[in-house]
Amino acid sequence: MRKIFLIFLIVGYTTIFPQKIEIKKIEPENWWIGMRLNKIQLMIYGKDLKSFKAKFDEPKIKIIKIHELENSDYAFIDIEIPKNILPKSYKLKLQSGKNLTEFNFPILKRENSQQRFQGFNQSDIIYLIMPDRFANGDVSNDSIKGYSDSMQKTPNQGRAGGDLQGVINKLDYLKDFGITSIWLTPVVENNTFRSYHGYAATDFYKVDPRLGSNELYKKFVDEAHKKNLKVILDHVANHCSDDHPWIKNLPMKNWFNGTLDNHLEANHNKMIFTDIHADSSTIKQVEQGWFVRSMPDLNQENIFVQNYIIQNTIWWIEFSGIDGIREDTYPYNNQKFMSKWADVILNEYPKLNIVGEVWTGEVDFLSTYQRNNPYKKPNTFLPSVTDFALRDVLIRFVEGKDNTYNIFNVLAKDYLYTDATQLVTFVDNHDLPRLMYFAKGNIQKAKLAYDILFTTRGIPQIFYGSEIGVIGTDDHGSLRIPFPGGFPNDKRNAFNEKERSDYENDIFNHLKNLIQLRKNYKALTQGKLIHFPPINDVYVYFRIYEDEKIMIIINNNTKLMKVDLSSMKNYVNPKNKLVDLRNRKELKTDEESKIEIPEVSSLILKIN
Amino acid sequence: MRKIFLIFLIVGYTTIFPQKIEIKKIEPENWWIGMRLNKIQLMIYGKDLKSFKAKFDEPKIKIIKIHELENSDYAFIDIEIPKNILPKSYKLKLQSGKNLTEFNFPILKRENSQQRFQGFNQSDIIYLIMPDRFANGDVSNDSIKGYSDSMQKTPNQGRAGGDLQGVINKLDYLKDFGITSIWLTPVVENNTFRSYHGYAATDFYKVDPRLGSNELYKKFVDEAHKKNLKVILDHVANHCSDDHPWIKNLPMKNWFNGTLDNHLEANHNKMIFTDIHADSSTIKQVEQGWFVRSMPDLNQENIFVQNYIIQNTIWWIEFSGIDGIREDTYPYNNQKFMSKWADVILNEYPKLNIVGEVWTGEVDFLSTYQRNNPYKKPNTFLPSVTDFALRDVLIRFVEGKDNTYNIFNVLAKDYLYTDATQLVTFVDNHDLPRLMYFAKGNIQKAKLAYDILFTTRGIPQIFYGSEIGVIGTDDHGSLRIPFPGGFPNDKRNAFNEKERSDYENDIFNHLKNLIQLRKNYKALTQGKLIHFPPINDVYVYFRIYEDEKIMIIINNNTKLMKVDLSSMKNYVNPKNKLVDLRNRKELKTDEESKIEIPEVSSLILKIN
Repeated sequence: MRKIFLIFLIVGYTTIFPQKIEIKKIEPENWWIGMRLNKIQLMIYGKDLKSFKAKFDEPKIKIIKIHELENSDYAFIDIEIPKNILPKSYKLKLQSGKNLTEFNFPILKRENSQQRFQGFNQSDIIYLIMPDRFANGDVSNDSIKGYSDSMQKTPNQGRAGGDLQGVINKLDYLKDFGITSIWLTPVVENNTFRSYHGYAATDFYKVDPRLGSNELYKKFVDEAHKKNLKVILDHVANHCSDDHPWIKNLPMKNWFNGTLDNHLEANHNKMIFTDIHADSSTIKQVEQGWFVRSMPDLNQENIFVQNYIIQNTIWWIEFSGIDGIREDTYPYNNQKFMSKWADVILNEYPKLNIVGEVWTGEVDFLSTYQRNNPYKKPNTFLPSVTDFALRDVLIRFVEGKDNTYNIFNVLAKDYLYTDATQLVTFVDNHDLPRLMYFAKGNIQKAKLAYDILFTTRGIPQIFYGSEIGVIGTDDHGSLRIPFPGGFPNDKRNAFNEKERSDYENDIFNHLKNLIQLRKNYKALTQGKLIHFPPINDVYVYFRIYEDEKIMIIINNNTKLMKVDLSSMKNYVNPKNKLVDLRNRKELKTDEESKIEIPEVSSLILKIN
Repeated sequence: MRKIFLIFLIVGYTTIFPQKIEIKKIEPENWWIGMRLNKIQLMIYGKDLKSFKAKFDEPKIKIIKIHELENSDYAFIDIEIPKNILPKSYKLKLQSGKNLTEFNFPILKRENSQQRFQGFNQSDIIYLIMPDRFANGDVSNDSIKGYSDSMQKTPNQGRAGGDLQGVINKLDYLKDFGITSIWLTPVVENNTFRSYHGYAATDFYKVDPRLGSNELYKKFVDEAHKKNLKVILDHVANHCSDDHPWIKNLPMKNWFNGTLDNHLEANHNKMIFTDIHADSSTIKQVEQGWFVRSMPDLNQENIFVQNYIIQNTIWWIEFSGIDGIREDTYPYNNQKFMSKWADVILNEYPKLNIVGEVWTGEVDFLSTYQRNNPYKKPNTFLPSVTDFALRDVLIRFVEGKDNTYNIFNVLAKDYLYTDATQLVTFVDNHDLPRLMYFAKGNIQKAKLAYDILFTTRGIPQIFYGSEIGVIGTDDHGSLRIPFPGGFPNDKRNAFNEKERSDYENDIFNHLKNLIQLRKNYKALTQGKLIHFPPINDVYVYFRIYEDEKIMIIINNNTKLMKVDLSSMKNYVNPKNKLVDLRNRKELKTDEESKIEIPEVSSLILKIN
């Protein structure tokens, strides 16, 4: 009885004497005029956000609905932005009783440029950078007050100090090397322990100050675009950091899947969505499980979380003008939501490309994640996925565990993909030991793997540092080694040809040459692939684009081989002149359609 | 000039003085009234089959067309058999000039029995017998004049003397063991070197006399049917023996793909039909290549060869009343023809089942061979294929190379099949070393593999002798070892429980018990399969049919495990009584939904 009275007293009190309503932050911080997504949901961070009314200082901006929450530190306001208003900063006014508060909400003109949202495709070569580990362009942001994670004391542990200015400074290096697209691992604020990698957001709308600022990120995109380099944003929808302010002050009880102390653990059953024998509880665990306690899993079934993530993605695209998205840990997300997410984004930006990270080397599972797969419901709408199947077989190839027939066999499964030409192909990335680690000094074999990577179908991706043959070990710290020359105290500058070792220049030039071949010959990027089952571990394939025909021969034997091309008469015959595209020498087959190829090497021959 | 005159002379001579036309054989030797396939093409073997007219002594039997060939030892006559004639032996009369010849062609009444053409499905258990190696029921046919291949002198080399009478004599053994279907390797005449296996036909219409006769084969089917045992015919459409009379006297120049001395060699690229990067020449080599010089590859693009094969298949079905077909070396056939073949056969016998031998353990390729696959054109119309994927993983499991997660992972690919329940599943067959060979004495592990084979989806097949744990080696002779007790000089009779060793009875009883469980519980045969990703190498799955629910737990650890079933509450909870179906003991989980399972063992529990 006493308790009820007390509650009544409080409720009565706050109604009669309301606290001053307060807005601390609005997300997104602005929007644009003329977006397809013109009905957006503002997330209001503040105080005493209850029993309030809302309006803009421009009545054409409609308030559709106000969502007050149990936790009055948050509220959501659905608004509609008409086309016929001026671009400027508007005021959002909230009124609770006699208390009034207001907050600026800029509604901007969209930038008009051909170089925004270009997408990427098989004509591109992607260069993957972990910005903390590439180049330090601004030492003043190495340590920032309030950001606990410290600079490296022991090598490869903790932050290295690389930043966006460092990447901007190296754009000429990248342009000269020949890559066409840059994928940075996430740049949003990760104000948390061991946070250099970027996958544990503490603020989804803010670039980490140790990397730069939102404006600097936009500048990086603009500078890249000026050099005809595209930019791919690494996006994480699945989880954030346990240091995200949401954790200490939950917007809603079901904002996350479970709590820090009571949640499902992630499992890695990426096959489960198409498994006809699976139970729904297994699917639930994949979608809702947490990787680690420090990365809480967002509840993507919550419509407010859904709106937040979709708007956040579109905000970054529109703000910065990026060309593509790499979506992190795709299979661990709620699959129904991700379908909607990609659909809305590609509806807004039809030319944009999205590549889903799907970490499985089994083509039957991997392929189900590409858009329009007949087996996976709902449609992912993902134009591209990461080709771990080709990566796995190329690594086993350099290790000597697999041969060219195994590579052929993986590519023979391409029928399972909606479009295998759009896969992002690679031999290493930021989560895996590098090619050169597996090659164990066998440079010839490693080069052969690159030859295949750059001449078969797909969109090749290079991991920063691998172009100079960085070896590293199998732990994260060491495989994500700082690029030598990118940091103030480095003893030499490996961005500079003259300061690279012969070994480094050998790899660098090999890759640069392959990139150049792709630029010179459309057959190598857009050409139809025709291949033949390897015989005696010699793999022959063709790339054909209109009249341009290129034959690639891979000899995985440790001896010179004489290759019989007589069964390939549809593509090459003894009348053809064959131009070795790496030295411009002319070759011919003998009268029996045979051609010689040295041990562990490739021939890339234009058929004239 | 002289040559032309000579040719003219001969042609002129034979026209004016025709040789006596002769019929030596007609294939098929008879047909039936009321078949859907009532227009058939008779292959006439004879002499001087040219410039002739043909008619039956019953004018209602229409002669549609006569095909004279360059080689006048052969001709084809297309006929149509109406419904309204009497079943009896008709006379086919050929007239060439004044010469006349006639030959009996019986047109029979179809047998009317519910037990013919029954098909087989997941309620069945198939027992595979190589008749030469199972039991010798008639020593009088061990050696036959004119048949060169001799009886075994060194163990396992050459013929063992087993025959159809031997199989008939052991039907009670098989019935008692519990199997429901018998698949014999081919029984047609193989009058050629090392011919015991049956895959090199020298006469497609005749049972090899060392095995018996056509009549005895029919008797075998009838006797089996009387005991409710089904029969599966092993059929070879792809090739025959180089001792087939066709080779010495070609019906047509293009009867085979190439000649003994000039043909393509088979390759084993079973992925090539769906490979979007394949060249047509590679496909041609798979379809037209010869396994070995002694097995010429039939030209299935030749319409006369097509008709021959289709009619031959239907003839055997109708003659004997078999229930299913196992089609040998399916991917090596002409795929367009095989589509037509299966379509015509299943149109004639809608309940019949056909299982295609597709020897690949990769589900993505294997699955394309089952009917209605979206990727493989044309439709194979095959209701079933051989599940080499499950076989491979179960063998790697007994070898200790794979664990239960790998098994789960293979079954998670079932979405790729049109219907995985219809796969023929097995751990060994006549081409592969037996399970016990790979188990290397680990009987517990081998039993566990059988437990999975008999409790997961599919139609299990047992290889003769494996039920008593025959080990054998990895060569054909030794893995196809004669069944001990099936042959006159055998020292003991392992068909008899009392003469089997403890080891043999242990395996036999283990399998017999599993078979009995399948008979007692529909859930184990027709039940829906629900499985969970194994944790700590314990695999839990359920088979559910209407109200019947069975839980199978596989513990692959060499220690007792406590299994947490709390995530499986949709199927089992602490309130359920669990009946161990092998000893009828009642079990329960503890309050935490945990249950204990001993090392390397399974539990098959009915959930009440």
